[in-house]
Amino acid sequence: MPPEQAELGSLTRPPATGIPEPQSFSFSVLNRKPDNLRGSGVREARAGRALGLGERWSCLGSFWLLRGLESPKGCVAFLLRQPGSLALSCTFRRLSPQSAPCGTSPCPALPSGPRKIQQEMEGDPALRLRVFDLNCWAIRYLSKRRQERIRLIGDMLRQEDFDLVLLQEVWSERDYSDLKVKLGGCYPFSHYFRSGVIGSGLCVFSRFPILDTLLYQYSLNGYPYMLQHGDWFCGKSVGLVIITISGIIFNIYVTHLHAEYCREKDAYLPHRLVQAWELAQFIRHTSKAADVVLLGGDLNMHPEDVGIRLLRGWTGLRDAFAEATHFEGCEDGCTLVPNNCFTDKSELLPFPLGIRIDYILYKAISSFMVKCEELKTTTGAAPGMDVPFSDHEAVMATLHIQRQGQAAGATLATAEPMLVDVVTEARTEVAVGLRAAQRQRYSSGRMALLALLLLLLQAVAALGALAGLDAGQPFPKLSFCLLACLAIGILLLATGLHLFHTMEVKMLHSTEEQMRMVLRTLQECPSDG
Amino acid sequence: MPPEQAELGSLTRPPATGIPEPQSFSFSVLNRKPDNLRGSGVREARAGRALGLGERWSCLGSFWLLRGLESPKGCVAFLLRQPGSLALSCTFRRLSPQSAPCGTSPCPALPSGPRKIQQEMEGDPALRLRVFDLNCWAIRYLSKRRQERIRLIGDMLRQEDFDLVLLQEVWSERDYSDLKVKLGGCYPFSHYFRSGVIGSGLCVFSRFPILDTLLYQYSLNGYPYMLQHGDWFCGKSVGLVIITISGIIFNIYVTHLHAEYCREKDAYLPHRLVQAWELAQFIRHTSKAADVVLLGGDLNMHPEDVGIRLLRGWTGLRDAFAEATHFEGCEDGCTLVPNNCFTDKSELLPFPLGIRIDYILYKAISSFMVKCEELKTTTGAAPGMDVPFSDHEAVMATLHIQRQGQAAGATLATAEPMLVDVVTEARTEVAVGLRAAQRQRYSSGRMALLALLLLLLQAVAALGALAGLDAGQPFPKLSFCLLACLAIGILLLATGLHLFHTMEVKMLHSTEEQMRMVLRTLQECPSDG
Repeated sequence: MPPEQAELGSLTRPPATGIPEPQSFSFSVLNRKPDNLRGSGVREARAGRALGLGERWSCLGSFWLLRGLESPKGCVAFLLRQPGSLALSCTFRRLSPQSAPCGTSPCPALPSGPRKIQQEMEGDPALRLRVFDLNCWAIRYLSKRRQERIRLIGDMLRQEDFDLVLLQEVWSERDYSDLKVKLGGCYPFSHYFRSGVIGSGLCVFSRFPILDTLLYQYSLNGYPYMLQHGDWFCGKSVGLVIITISGIIFNIYVTHLHAEYCREKDAYLPHRLVQAWELAQFIRHTSKAADVVLLGGDLNMHPEDVGIRLLRGWTGLRDAFAEATHFEGCEDGCTLVPNNCFTDKSELLPFPLGIRIDYILYKAISSFMVKCEELKTTTGAAPGMDVPFSDHEAVMATLHIQRQGQAAGATLATAEPMLVDVVTEARTEVAVGLRAAQRQRYSSGRMALLALLLLLLQAVAALGALAGLDAGQPFPKLSFCLLACLAIGILLLATGLHLFHTMEVKMLHSTEEQMRMVLRTLQECPSDG
Repeated sequence: MPPEQAELGSLTRPPATGIPEPQSFSFSVLNRKPDNLRGSGVREARAGRALGLGERWSCLGSFWLLRGLESPKGCVAFLLRQPGSLALSCTFRRLSPQSAPCGTSPCPALPSGPRKIQQEMEGDPALRLRVFDLNCWAIRYLSKRRQERIRLIGDMLRQEDFDLVLLQEVWSERDYSDLKVKLGGCYPFSHYFRSGVIGSGLCVFSRFPILDTLLYQYSLNGYPYMLQHGDWFCGKSVGLVIITISGIIFNIYVTHLHAEYCREKDAYLPHRLVQAWELAQFIRHTSKAADVVLLGGDLNMHPEDVGIRLLRGWTGLRDAFAEATHFEGCEDGCTLVPNNCFTDKSELLPFPLGIRIDYILYKAISSFMVKCEELKTTTGAAPGMDVPFSDHEAVMATLHIQRQGQAAGATLATAEPMLVDVVTEARTEVAVGLRAAQRQRYSSGRMALLALLLLLLQAVAALGALAGLDAGQPFPKLSFCLLACLAIGILLLATGLHLFHTMEVKMLHSTEEQMRMVLRTLQECPSDG
């Protein structure tokens, strides 16, 4: 036995038949600190899984090779560690591209569907990524047939072979845990983003190790007193997970913006625009080291809405629906359609085909090129079922990622010649919201002052009565006390509202100022100049 | 006149004496779209300013050259635009390092102090950066001699020649505006971060163009009902500004964490630890494209506190005080000292020398090396004044930044062998906070339920009285009404508290889980393994 194999003696593998099959290869304990690792070591590499690579693969990223194991069939198993990150992963490399594939036994845990990740020849790698996005509408006690649908979603995800699953409105952590248990075999890595009172509802399931996560909660998200809408209590956020596939760094964002309850008179438009702006800024600032950026979620905006144009213009993200070579699903890619039994038909009356508010957006930042080969949506009830997965339709994209010679990242000016108009439009809407918030702040402040004044008057009257100055009791004690209670109640409520609207004014003002700064800079170097 | 000069005819420069002096060179209008710019153009470059470069300089970053202007003395003025950003700046390049410096006339707007930015020879550039950090203690109506001190701070900053000024507790936007007007000549670029009810209090003044900004508000920041402390109302945050100096990208962070009111029994420790963790995560995720990271602010933690060890360990940031070659100021670098007339002497009794809670931290990420050549603090009253700038002492660092051959970014494992212990300690504290928050959530929920029960009982009694079921009135109407009002008040208050503590539990739980994940990964590859 060569020394390399002896050092890896603790790997769980069939002792006689040689190297385990790459697709299902797993390792458990590696007790020795490898000699070629500087300053760190692996004491225990927990149950790992092969990256699900296809026929041809190679390691593209900069990894520290911890240990390699050569097989009699010409395969090498690598235990890798990426510098700067703490993630451990295991990948495989065939020594000769022409030789037979390593191993033949199928993986019981992995789905038997087509291989998704294909890496063609070293130097010209291509990668195919299948992404699933769905607003699950899983509100405890409120959503119809919630548990049944969550079960259906889990079953379908286990059968299908997506690489990445982005879910919204999974409000119950119990639902997430159930999905996690069910999907553990196919999607061993997952993350649930906690936020607000109820929770952000956002979670991600991945076939690839999640290296890092970050949550950004939007500074504005409706009003706590709008209990019937309830968005405020969710702490709407954008979640970021970072994964690496064959050395390509993916920044995956999942989000859910404030709902639109009345399109004609949308009181939440300024808040949603602030969210779209913060989302764009968050993506711009956190994706600088990424090769590919992917955003999935329920943006609660129609494709032509100013918020989505702002988001796309300011980040350079492209719409998978618009870019897809092949499309299959609801007409116009709609994700809220009348023939879904859970949708409110009256709300969709002005849109007989439905509306498109769920998106998969993407871009390549460094020297990669991303294409959307195929986009699909579900169309109401799941096949063979009488119940759809959700009131929203799922969006499923197949992305093709390829390295290319020169940097693909289009600059803002070239990507969005109309960006000035979009930012101007967004800024106008935010300014309208700012004025409304200022009015509300003023009204609530005035109300609090009036209540305080009333309380002071009552206190003076009470003191006067105690000092025996009054000529008899002007009005009964009961009314007096009730009035005082009312005044106290109004004072507290109005003060709370005043504080809330002060914060709202601050954030709208801040966003409006940022947009003004960007506009000034854009106007200094217009693309039509 | 060569064609290059003709195209730049609208530049404001002395018509006869050739090229303007680099230090004061300004440009106003450039009407033509330069031919070598793809897809964009410069219609109007607003009043600019030279970057304040010293004797030798060169352009290091990747810029688009919009237009160059050669002078008879061998200088070239470049109008530059950085790809991906929209910032315009003007820099200068001497064609021959041995030739005489371009221009000699002094700049009236720039201070006449020593040149700070020195760039030595192309290929081996070195840069000296002077950073100023101060918690200004400028709370309207509460801080003593606020306006006088703000005036003094402004005067001092105008006299001194810092490159970067990071201020905290500038709660009044009026104070910021006054400083902005006063410092416009020396620090032409500035940003104020709005947040919370009162404002984050954070602002930055810079001698170099601010290319981009981002604010991250901490998810936990004390309790709204702790009015006497008031931290909650400030919306404590971390602000990021990005500047580029000679092609070196600086990510500058300014922050102010929750105050410590009682060191023996610090009820806010879990919140401050969540803030330190979120600060570290925010820095890690947003600084990936930076060459140099700089954090300044009032961290409200002693140097040996777990929060600061966590922050330093998880980001790799180094403490300017500990690293400084030369130090001058209060003993042990303290920034809250007993001989400052504004500090509370009783609070500092256990610390006769004072405490160090204001920091400048830094690190180089890519192939740069940062050294702290000198660190200074103020020592109570400003020279020649009877009043200190603030109740805190200012921290002033001179950093020396140099490009080096290989990447300097130390990995986590090698930089902090004790990181596992630190994260474990922090997680324990967060877990303690989590249990306390869970108890408070439970108590407030129970209180709300009891109040609801009381109200229901009263409603039943009232209905009974209306139906004539009662044998006489059990207790007077007044007490009955007051009790109902009290129950409503308690119900509202307890519900609000319950919601707040639910959010608190969520965020503490989330942080604790993140730390657990990091610990698991760290323990899998310990540096002592």
